[in-house]
Amino acid sequence: MKKISTILVSLLTVVGSMCYAQTSTTVIKEDFKPSSLNQPGKEYPMVNSQGYARFKVDAPQAQSIVVSLGLGGAKGGTPLAKAEDGSWMGTTAGPMDEGFHYYHLTIDGGVFNDPGALNYYGSTRWESGIEIPAQDQDFYALKDVPHGNVHQILFPSPSTKTSRRAFVYTPPTYGKDKNTRYPVLYLQHGWGEDETAWSNQGHANLIMDNLIAEGKIKPFIIVMTYGMTNEIKFGSGFRNFDFTQFQTVLVDELIPYVDANFATKADHQNRAMAGLSMGGMETKNITLSKPEVFSHYALLSGGTYAPDEIKDKSKVKLIFLSCGSKERPDGIKSSVEALKGAGFNAVSYISEGTAHEFQTWRRSLKELAPLLFK
Amino acid sequence: MKKISTILVSLLTVVGSMCYAQTSTTVIKEDFKPSSLNQPGKEYPMVNSQGYARFKVDAPQAQSIVVSLGLGGAKGGTPLAKAEDGSWMGTTAGPMDEGFHYYHLTIDGGVFNDPGALNYYGSTRWESGIEIPAQDQDFYALKDVPHGNVHQILFPSPSTKTSRRAFVYTPPTYGKDKNTRYPVLYLQHGWGEDETAWSNQGHANLIMDNLIAEGKIKPFIIVMTYGMTNEIKFGSGFRNFDFTQFQTVLVDELIPYVDANFATKADHQNRAMAGLSMGGMETKNITLSKPEVFSHYALLSGGTYAPDEIKDKSKVKLIFLSCGSKERPDGIKSSVEALKGAGFNAVSYISEGTAHEFQTWRRSLKELAPLLFK
Repeated sequence: MKKISTILVSLLTVVGSMCYAQTSTTVIKEDFKPSSLNQPGKEYPMVNSQGYARFKVDAPQAQSIVVSLGLGGAKGGTPLAKAEDGSWMGTTAGPMDEGFHYYHLTIDGGVFNDPGALNYYGSTRWESGIEIPAQDQDFYALKDVPHGNVHQILFPSPSTKTSRRAFVYTPPTYGKDKNTRYPVLYLQHGWGEDETAWSNQGHANLIMDNLIAEGKIKPFIIVMTYGMTNEIKFGSGFRNFDFTQFQTVLVDELIPYVDANFATKADHQNRAMAGLSMGGMETKNITLSKPEVFSHYALLSGGTYAPDEIKDKSKVKLIFLSCGSKERPDGIKSSVEALKGAGFNAVSYISEGTAHEFQTWRRSLKELAPLLFK
Repeated sequence: MKKISTILVSLLTVVGSMCYAQTSTTVIKEDFKPSSLNQPGKEYPMVNSQGYARFKVDAPQAQSIVVSLGLGGAKGGTPLAKAEDGSWMGTTAGPMDEGFHYYHLTIDGGVFNDPGALNYYGSTRWESGIEIPAQDQDFYALKDVPHGNVHQILFPSPSTKTSRRAFVYTPPTYGKDKNTRYPVLYLQHGWGEDETAWSNQGHANLIMDNLIAEGKIKPFIIVMTYGMTNEIKFGSGFRNFDFTQFQTVLVDELIPYVDANFATKADHQNRAMAGLSMGGMETKNITLSKPEVFSHYALLSGGTYAPDEIKDKSKVKLIFLSCGSKERPDGIKSSVEALKGAGFNAVSYISEGTAHEFQTWRRSLKELAPLLFK
């Protein structure tokens, strides 16, 4: 299937070459298939084996449609052009990174979602999602193995005067033996995302199901809740972001509720916290502030720890730092070296060929899980 | 707050009066508030105390934007007009029915969602949703009461060669006492919806939490899965729709999985099936085909039973038939009278002032629940 769609490529080369040098020489393979994240029955958007994405949108009277893909993808947007059937079509000027990407359409100057794609909460809005098949996609595939459940819980939060939502992954064996209790990982999303991200975009439940089925980890529970409790203050910037309100929700409200309602091992040794991006910043702040609560810390594209930031080394069982190779892997590696030098059990992981996106974090969870609660 | 937004009303009266006689005399109260189903931080769409909905969409270069509201709302669409700030604005020409409505935007001839609203799966696509506050909204409100969990489960389905998703509501007391087992209601969505509908649009979990907190029902489990397993045949029309494939998934695969993995009372007397619209058609077909599996039957805007369709009267503990007053309540009432005359325990419920929409079904679940498993 190396046939070139000559007309379309020529058209897009003219547009694309303003931004992308590679388009003038790239042969786009015509093996496009619907993205695995399309709405039921929808053909577009499509992706090919090289990582190109092709879009088709019906809006006959529109003046312009541009596809805006998130970080790590083709930058600057993919303008669509009128096709013969009146629809708007276009292909990214370059291949996208493997894995999940947020995107949206700008139609006549307004921001909308692609009606062909499923929606995922990111950038403080429900965005369209597209999946570029990854070489290693097997580790988060839906397989014929025993599956754990993802529970939506509503827990009382006096500090925010409401019932708050969290999702709790319980492993396939959960509840089968009344006497078995499980360690717990508290796992946070990034800025602009919410408590749905790790299950929807991240496939955290499938990653766990598969690792457990392969005997690579001991089962544990994962709890995911919304971390932007005081997002209203975000206007003042990250540096002034106050984590104490979320810390109260997490440590004083959610953890006691989970320990009271699930079969957990409710102690320091069996409690981990991890987060991606802003969730990593939260993880760092809260683990340093509450060393008696968590023993395993993980920052996924979410910063580093310096050895002297940690007051009581004996309370820390693991520090896991990761990012994509397209982020700043040197900072992660040197931080882990410094932590090791100071006697910490520290591990780094660099996701090859990925940026500040969910493929980095799916892989990070897969690498982190076997290291927890040993 | 009876101030009239004179300019806007005048403008919309011109447009609206082509379809709606009432607009020329109605005074629209300017007490609009954001719909409770808006995306976080979004002001529009808004609703007022009379049930009018107002929309605002940014797309400066668009040629036309029309809001298409679902059944039971203003019909024919609400065209938006350019406002001074370059956005598109408009108000429905008449008040909407209370409760939940699906809608979408037609922008320059293409169908898109409103970026201000959350999305709900209906009409075989993720649609925008808007909520007109109902007089009786308290029964599905999120309150400070003990909350049950909604578990996402993945169950093996050899007949469809995949793992299928279902949602399982467990009441707040579930799991607290290891010896307590619960009856189960299998609850189906309508055509074009999926297994998310009863929790997302229907608030089935909150309805149950509130009824349980008020002591109005004995707790039971609700199981919700996808009923359009062979939707590909839908082109041939409803009458030729073959329910046997879904019956296999439900009766031979899902029910055994639920009984094996949850603390259920796994017998005929403690198993009910209900469905809305197409889900009612499925409920009728499957309960008649498998009288040994279910003892309580409920069709919500989903048809009726004739007494002679039921072969063994002793197997039926309850037949519940409901619809909105704007549907065909006479058919429901006369069917229930005939069933009663034939000796069945039959109950009808008519939701006042609502049509073939979710407010009818939320209320129907609230009326049905206390009648189950007595």
